[in-house]
Amino acid sequence: MQRRTVGIFVFDDVEVLDFAGPYEVFSRTRLVPGLESRRSNEHAPFDVFTVAREREPVKATGGLRVIPDHSIASAPPIDILVIPGGFGTRRLLEDSGAVSWIKSAAETASTTTSVCTGALLLAKAGLLRGRQATTHWGALDLLSALDQTIRVERDRVYVDDVIVTSAGVAAGIEMAFYVVEKLCGAAVADETARYIEYPRRSG
Amino acid sequence: MQRRTVGIFVFDDVEVLDFAGPYEVFSRTRLVPGLESRRSNEHAPFDVFTVAREREPVKATGGLRVIPDHSIASAPPIDILVIPGGFGTRRLLEDSGAVSWIKSAAETASTTTSVCTGALLLAKAGLLRGRQATTHWGALDLLSALDQTIRVERDRVYVDDVIVTSAGVAAGIEMAFYVVEKLCGAAVADETARYIEYPRRSG
Repeated sequence: MQRRTVGIFVFDDVEVLDFAGPYEVFSRTRLVPGLESRRSNEHAPFDVFTVAREREPVKATGGLRVIPDHSIASAPPIDILVIPGGFGTRRLLEDSGAVSWIKSAAETASTTTSVCTGALLLAKAGLLRGRQATTHWGALDLLSALDQTIRVERDRVYVDDVIVTSAGVAAGIEMAFYVVEKLCGAAVADETARYIEYPRRSG
Repeated sequence: MQRRTVGIFVFDDVEVLDFAGPYEVFSRTRLVPGLESRRSNEHAPFDVFTVAREREPVKATGGLRVIPDHSIASAPPIDILVIPGGFGTRRLLEDSGAVSWIKSAAETASTTTSVCTGALLLAKAGLLRGRQATTHWGALDLLSALDQTIRVERDRVYVDDVIVTSAGVAAGIEMAFYVVEKLCGAAVADETARYIEYPRRSG
């Protein structure tokens, strides 16, 4: 089986659940149901890794320290790109190297997603131009200000308009299940939700 | 303000969302509502850190690498102890140093909690003797086998019987909000849930 790669961008002041929620969902998905299939990667449809600006550890919001698997310079090809949010996105909006990496990674990815204020980075990269999109409720106006062609959805858990954006923090879990369902079917997504005891809601 | 410390145990093969869910909830709780209060720790009632067997990085399920803040030998006093689960708990059941640290940390903590199969470690430490408790649905029988005096609750999101245990993985988020509500009130817990866009359910 050819696994799809899931590249999750991490950075200083990334919100913990923004990246950890999708990380959990994608990394625990199995095409064979049950407990046993979770003991190995044999039936895993996704190969999940973290990517940071550099190889150095990043400090997430609250102080959690994560060692990235790859730098943006050395990351393997990414099928599913996940751009989480957090206060660190504000600094990255001014980081042209990070923004252009996101733009080029999105061009080769089959699915590009954001959680929370990760949408701001997608907007800055021009990826949401003319599209429907959402973000954390506290950043809806900022998203609109970054690109006035974006049709900002103010009351959705996630929005799929070629690019898949989601609302704040925990909404990234829902978004990840939505992507799993799209790629692997509802049975696989629902069984994985049952495995991690997460009650899915609708978009 | 005297902050309560939240010590979250991490170890190889800890389930990502088991520790990241409570980490997110406790670290983003603020006594003053809104977006601005999240920009600093001024109104944070909790000081959250990770504790591992040793100071070396741990590799969570799926491969996420985390640098612990403290080893069990050097951890500061813990008010709220969080023992997450994951396949790594099976190895720790045979690790008398880890189990005895959990026992002693629980003795001085004001609140001891577990997520998922973290309950197995609490059971091994004798902390669930004669109590109601729960764990991941796939480990309910194992919990019972470890200590037959435990009244295993098979259909609860979390159970508070002096020790607060929760069901699998995502149930740790609910459990953390329950503890926040108990210590800081429902308004603070609900506002934090709104901040991280998490729809709370009931225990």
